[in-house]
Amino acid sequence: MEDAVILLSGGMDSGVLLAWACSRFRTVEGLYFEYGSRHQEKECAMARRLAQHYEISLTKISLPFVSDLFASSLLKTGPEVPEGPYADDNMSSTVVPFRNGIMLSIAVGFAENNGIEHVLIASHSGDHPIYPDCRPSFTTAMSEAAAKGTAGRVCVAAPFNSMSKKEIAEIGRKLSFDFSMTWSCYKGLTLHCGRCATCLERKSALGHDMGLDPTEYMQ
Amino acid sequence: MEDAVILLSGGMDSGVLLAWACSRFRTVEGLYFEYGSRHQEKECAMARRLAQHYEISLTKISLPFVSDLFASSLLKTGPEVPEGPYADDNMSSTVVPFRNGIMLSIAVGFAENNGIEHVLIASHSGDHPIYPDCRPSFTTAMSEAAAKGTAGRVCVAAPFNSMSKKEIAEIGRKLSFDFSMTWSCYKGLTLHCGRCATCLERKSALGHDMGLDPTEYMQ
Repeated sequence: MEDAVILLSGGMDSGVLLAWACSRFRTVEGLYFEYGSRHQEKECAMARRLAQHYEISLTKISLPFVSDLFASSLLKTGPEVPEGPYADDNMSSTVVPFRNGIMLSIAVGFAENNGIEHVLIASHSGDHPIYPDCRPSFTTAMSEAAAKGTAGRVCVAAPFNSMSKKEIAEIGRKLSFDFSMTWSCYKGLTLHCGRCATCLERKSALGHDMGLDPTEYMQ
Repeated sequence: MEDAVILLSGGMDSGVLLAWACSRFRTVEGLYFEYGSRHQEKECAMARRLAQHYEISLTKISLPFVSDLFASSLLKTGPEVPEGPYADDNMSSTVVPFRNGIMLSIAVGFAENNGIEHVLIASHSGDHPIYPDCRPSFTTAMSEAAAKGTAGRVCVAAPFNSMSKKEIAEIGRKLSFDFSMTWSCYKGLTLHCGRCATCLERKSALGHDMGLDPTEYMQ
């Protein structure tokens, strides 16, 4: 069996990925990236809770240059996150340029430094239209770059890349994953707002209408 | 004409790349990465001097996690840099895992954020045996990842990748490049030590034996 490091954001997708990876790899480590997102305190607390629950080591990596240099409504330094459903024209302001490329590259360096063979990211098909660095063609190219740049010692994979968020939720349920240990809302308030694009997406994936969603929402 | 951002380390290769790029692109910007290398104060001072001379904007990006998490003799936190010639067995301790992958990814995000089409790096053939993330196969894969992850808005290129350091020196001379504005030595003392692997490489590339090298060495 080999080892893996996963990008653990504290969201439901990477939470389920952690549960999934723990059953498949000898050891799993988590990396949490602090890049100035509005919801980072919430996210980081959830990532810590997940790491504790699954008894894995979690390393926090700060990237102060992201909010200093990049513009995005996802960042504390950016404009407001729009409300309403996830769609190209609505959510394009939440793009943080090449975010996954940056986080994956750092994770590849971390993996190579620690003799870990696999870097895992929880990209899924719902993210493809808006975020180019969530698409399978990007992950494939990035995996090739990781292999070439580490002389074959590290590879990158996105096991959920062809799945919808609903399918990830199903995998989580099969693994008895506790979704209340995760955070989605872009607003970073005390509770999930229940109205922003990512809350609406979470409600839909977790079957909120059918009473299957354990999340407490403001509305 | 299009715009470019270059990884400017303050070394002779990226210095010549800057001179070369200034004649080919509408605007050129520089990025200097501070990742805890032994010689970073010297390097950064040289990068600033180059930026001033070529009248370009220079942005310094700090990556504190590199020396916190990665082991390398290139870092202040690592073991001594070995002396003697550049060779696999001698210089492998100077590898910073996936360093170029990390710096290029951040540069790609910076370029996308600022509407810059090209990211340039000064990798050359002399680095290939020791550093996998300097090889053409890596740069090609990284360029593909950049294109996919930015929906075709940014590409990565290493114009000197098939050249030797000596050939880069020749290009520099043709462009009237002042090599005394650059720093190579891994030791980070007041003057170039003249004995470490990168000093020996610099002497050879600049024709030290033939009196063509303007560098002042300790020995």
